[in-house]
This record gives sequence, C-alpha cells and structure tokens, in this order.
Amino acid sequence: MSTARQYFQLPGRFEMRRGGHLDRPVVAYETWGQLNPARDNAIVIFTGMSPSAHATSSPEDPSPGWWEEIVGPSRPIDTRRFFVICINSLGSCFGSTGPASPDPATGQPYRTSFPVLSLEDVANAGQALLAHLGIGQLHSIVGPSMGGMTALACAIQHPGISRHLVLLSTAARALPFSIAIRSLQREMIRRDPAWAEGNYPADAGPITGMRLARKLGMMTYRGAREWEQRFGRERVPGERQAGNAFALDFEVEAYLEAHALKFIGQFDANCYLYLSRASDLFDVADHGGSIQAGFTRVSAERVLVIGVETDILFPVAQQRELAAGLAAPCRDVQLAQLPSVQGHDSFLVDMDRFRPVLSAFFA
Amino acid sequence: MSTARQYFQLPGRFEMRRGGHLDRPVVAYETWGQLNPARDNAIVIFTGMSPSAHATSSPEDPSPGWWEEIVGPSRPIDTRRFFVICINSLGSCFGSTGPASPDPATGQPYRTSFPVLSLEDVANAGQALLAHLGIGQLHSIVGPSMGGMTALACAIQHPGISRHLVLLSTAARALPFSIAIRSLQREMIRRDPAWAEGNYPADAGPITGMRLARKLGMMTYRGAREWEQRFGRERVPGERQAGNAFALDFEVEAYLEAHALKFIGQFDANCYLYLSRASDLFDVADHGGSIQAGFTRVSAERVLVIGVETDILFPVAQQRELAAGLAAPCRDVQLAQLPSVQGHDSFLVDMDRFRPVLSAFFA
Repeated sequence: MSTARQYFQLPGRFEMRRGGHLDRPVVAYETWGQLNPARDNAIVIFTGMSPSAHATSSPEDPSPGWWEEIVGPSRPIDTRRFFVICINSLGSCFGSTGPASPDPATGQPYRTSFPVLSLEDVANAGQALLAHLGIGQLHSIVGPSMGGMTALACAIQHPGISRHLVLLSTAARALPFSIAIRSLQREMIRRDPAWAEGNYPADAGPITGMRLARKLGMMTYRGAREWEQRFGRERVPGERQAGNAFALDFEVEAYLEAHALKFIGQFDANCYLYLSRASDLFDVADHGGSIQAGFTRVSAERVLVIGVETDILFPVAQQRELAAGLAAPCRDVQLAQLPSVQGHDSFLVDMDRFRPVLSAFFA
Repeated sequence: MSTARQYFQLPGRFEMRRGGHLDRPVVAYETWGQLNPARDNAIVIFTGMSPSAHATSSPEDPSPGWWEEIVGPSRPIDTRRFFVICINSLGSCFGSTGPASPDPATGQPYRTSFPVLSLEDVANAGQALLAHLGIGQLHSIVGPSMGGMTALACAIQHPGISRHLVLLSTAARALPFSIAIRSLQREMIRRDPAWAEGNYPADAGPITGMRLARKLGMMTYRGAREWEQRFGRERVPGERQAGNAFALDFEVEAYLEAHALKFIGQFDANCYLYLSRASDLFDVADHGGSIQAGFTRVSAERVLVIGVETDILFPVAQQRELAAGLAAPCRDVQLAQLPSVQGHDSFLVDMDRFRPVLSAFFA
C-alpha cells in the first residue's frame, strides 16, 4: 500500500445513527496540497459508493485517481490553492472500517454483524477526522452521487462546517426506481449461494452475484443514448463469441462483461450491501420531519448543484429539487443542468462539460 | 385445459430462419367471433414475450385474458364484427412448440437443443395457421411489444397478408439498452445453478434466476414516474418485513417481490431464454440490408403506431422511427404518442388512453 493513504482511528466508541456502535473505527483518507495558516482552504470530497480515497495521483501514489482530471495542480479543484482531503466512506473496504474489517471484540470480520450503516454515520466519521486535523470550517464539501448525500448529511448535522457545498448528480433522497435497482443488485448478491449469508472466505465470495450487480449498475450509470451512439447493434466478432449461444452476440454485451470482470475482487460484497442500503435509507426529511425542514438546516454561503439530463439513477429533477430547496437557507445557489449523454457517470467521464462549471465555481 | 385453446400441427418439416428445423410443430391459438363469408374480417394478435393466446375471456374459458378490455364484444377490437385470432408464439410454453416441448426424435424436451428462434419463425408459424384456416388476407395484424416485431416480420415476409397493421410499444429492432437489459435477464437465469445448462426437471428449475429476471423486467416494463406517485418512499410495515435486514424496507421492494413470486412456475425458463434472445436478434434491416429497405417491403393500406412517452424498453423515438419509415410504403400511417406514466406496460393497463385510439382505428 502506498504512503498516500493515511489512517485516523477514532478514539473510543462510535455510536451509529440506526443503533449499535463501532469500537475505535478507522477512517482512511488521502490529502493533496497544504493547509494554509488561516486553516480555511480545506476541501473535503466524499465519494460515490465504490471509489477509494484515491481521487487523484500524488508523488506518494502516482497511479491515476478516480477524479484525476478534476483534482490536482491547475485543475478545477486546484491543489496549489486548496488542501484537499478525500475520505473513504465508513463501511467501505479501502482502509476505512467496514463489514470486511475485524471486529475488535472477536478478531473476526464484522460481516453482517456490522450495524446498519447510514450516510449520517459516514459523514460523522468524516467530521471526526476534520476535528482531528484541526479544521474547524471547510472551504467546501464536494460530493458526487452517494457522496452528495453524505455531504448533505454532513452539512445538516454539523451546521457551519463548510462555507460552500458542491453537489453533483445526487439527491435529497432516493426515488423508488433507484431503490428498486439497488434492491435488486443486493438480491443478486444475496441469492448467490457463495454469499453464504455473508460468511464467505476473504479470498472468495459471491462472484456471480457481484458480476450481475455490476452489470445492472453499468446500465443505470451510463446512458441509453450513449450506447446507441457507441454500440448500436454491432456484433461481437465470431471468434470472440462464447461457446454458449446465450452468452455474447452484441458489442454492448461484451462491454458489460468486461466491466463486470474488472470489478470482481475489487470490492467486498458485504461492504457493497451496506453502502447500497445506506444510499436507499438516506432521506433529508429524516432531519426535521420534511424535506424542506431538512434543507433549512443547511447553512452554506454558496451552493453549486450539477445534474445531468440523461441520468436515470439520480434524475435531473432531483437536482432541481435540491437547488430549489437549498435556495431558502443558502444565499447563493447555482444549478447546472448538463446535456451529457453518459448518464449518471458523466461526472467521471464528461470532463469537457464538468470541468468549466467546477473551475468557475472555485475560481 | 379449457376448450378455448386450439391447436394446429404444421405438416412436415418447419425450417427455422437461423438454421435447423422442427418436425411438425404445433401452434396454439384462441379465436373469438366469426369469420364472415367474404373471409375478410380476421384480425391476428401476436403477443408480447410472456402472454398466452388467452387475450380475452370466452364462454369456453371465462377467465379474464391479458387484453380483456381491448378484445371482446363492443370493445375496441370488437368480436361481434371481427374474427379475432390470438397466437401463442412458437418457442413459448402455452401450447405452441417450444424448448419445453418433446422433440419427436427423442421423446425428450428439446431444452437447449431447440434451434435458435427468430421472430420470423414465429411469424411464419402464424402464417401457416392462417393458411390452414383458409384466410388469405387479414383485416389487421395487431402486435404489442415483441408481438409488434413479429407483426413486422409477418408483413415483411408475406406481402399483402394484411390490409392493416397495428404496432403498439414496439420497434424495428432493439437498441443496446434493451439488449443489455434482456441479456442480463438471461444471464440471471443461466447463472442460477438450478438452470443446469437447461436440463432442469419439469417441476423445478432456476426459480431464483427467474425471480431476479422478472424483477428487472418489471423495472423496465413500468415507469419511474408511476412508482414515484404510487410508492414514493413508503415503508413496509414492520410485521411484513423479512427477518433479513437486506430484504424489504420499502413498498416498492414488496411490490416487486409479489410480482416475482406470481411469475414463478408460470413460464418455462428455457422458453424465456429463447424468446428473449429472439427479441434482441430481430432487425427489420435483415430484410433488404437496411431499415428503410426492410420497411419498403411492408404493404398495408393503413398503419397505426402507438408509443408511450415513459417507455424505456421501447422508447417512443422508436415508434416515431416506425411511423416515419412506414410512411413511404404505406398510404396512411398514424402515430399516437401517449403520455401514459406506466411505461412499456401501458398498453396492458392504461386503458383510458389506449381504448379510444384503438376504437377510432377499428371504427
């Protein structure tokens, strides 16, 4: 493991929002740039469901990060100006404590004995790290996808924690279509006999279930229009077709297969289940009894909300809802609705559209 | 089995479009109304992927059919005026020969030795039935969803077979998003160990795979907007939640679970695989080398194309493409784009919108 990844162990008992607790959980993170003497140039990035804290490369870890083109020197989140912290979500499997981590009480992985995870917990663990780093107020919290919900949870629970808020392709709470998608992904994993009620060995696991879940994920992360332009009805050449007549006819099938194979072994299945469910459970309305009451607990000077018109997982109407709801409590709310064709994942790939919007905000 | 269902056994060898043949396959069908002396009042309905030939009730089978409100006396397809024939697709499992039927050569079910099925085969088996019934030219062919593709295959391969054509929520060929969805459904079934390469016993089978495939089906058959109105974030009452924390939190999950359970045992898994792949493979462009060349082979006096704005499986742009493409060879093409919220399945449920359009066409 490179020295880029750092760890902070929370002292003592960490209470979980939906019951239960963790003993001295660890939060893994990476940083880039320097905290200035006024300690007011820190930006936190909460991630989507599956990335690690490695948002971008550094001398300590030169491998490209998941947001390489957005974070770095002279990039929209400029690490010459800002001290950037990317946090691996509590419950994940890239250094932070999650279902795959050993329970100090038993020495064995938590697996399904891990308490129900909520994004409020993820946010609170992040806030504890900031306190440890001596950062009282952030310049910005930035959150794409699930990370945007975590950003909202953080802003709502810790008033004044950040002057600015950047929410990308996210929502105040999941709609039933997205819940159904994620629920089916979880069921694909749980119904794989290799899941074994969560008790699979560390070097094996529900590979078939994870493959299927990843394929469904890709269908909802990307756009039908993009695939139409990219694949149309192109066939897989005969020599690449599997022996099984039902396996591969079309290029789009080969594309999904390649993505599914790449995902295998990268992500712990139990962690996936916990983070996926946390995304479904999150609801701004849990804070004050209604969406609007929840929004009024957010205090930020400037808010940037970015949505994509082809996103079916976090439809752009949900970003309009965020912008409208945050307009009351926050002074300056900008909404950017981008015509990207790559759907939900556009923030990872349609850099030509996202870069200028983010650059202008942070300029 | 009620006497409503009738069977026609094709004489001799039935050549399949993509290779192989069937020996004396059977086509199951139901009829309503009477063929008039001029023999020009017959309407054929080709079905979507999963229904039987029981489109509507009759004295012989009073159970409600899958299109009960559309077909019957005084209904839009009026059985007092028309002789209506609904055909169970070749390859299905409701009386017509399919992978679950015994291969006369072995006495054992075909299973995966069934030749690759194409919708052209389904159409040809239907046309053979019509010849047997002494019907040279139909009043109309009506096809929703996959049945619309079969209707196109029939019209293209048998010029002049029908004076009118009614295509509902269908397409000239599948787009990559729909292919990806169906491919994943097939993989869910194939990866279920109980599928056993297609050699499951008649009374068992890949129940888990079929459940998952049905749930994904429901997500693409219905609409995100409908679910938002219908379920929102309603929770399942505590007493109905399963013991497993990952099973059921939200009403939308319980709804999908109920639909999946209802589907189990109703449809043979191998038949599902064959019909699903046939839907992906169909392409009007296979007839003449291009979509437009394929369209020009359709000769019908009047064509009605109906699409639904919230359909993500057969998006309304595909119905616009059909209407535009058929305008050249056919004299009178009407396109109805309906604002139903129930997505692809609207033709089965949004009767208030579909009824008047169909009534006007058949008036």
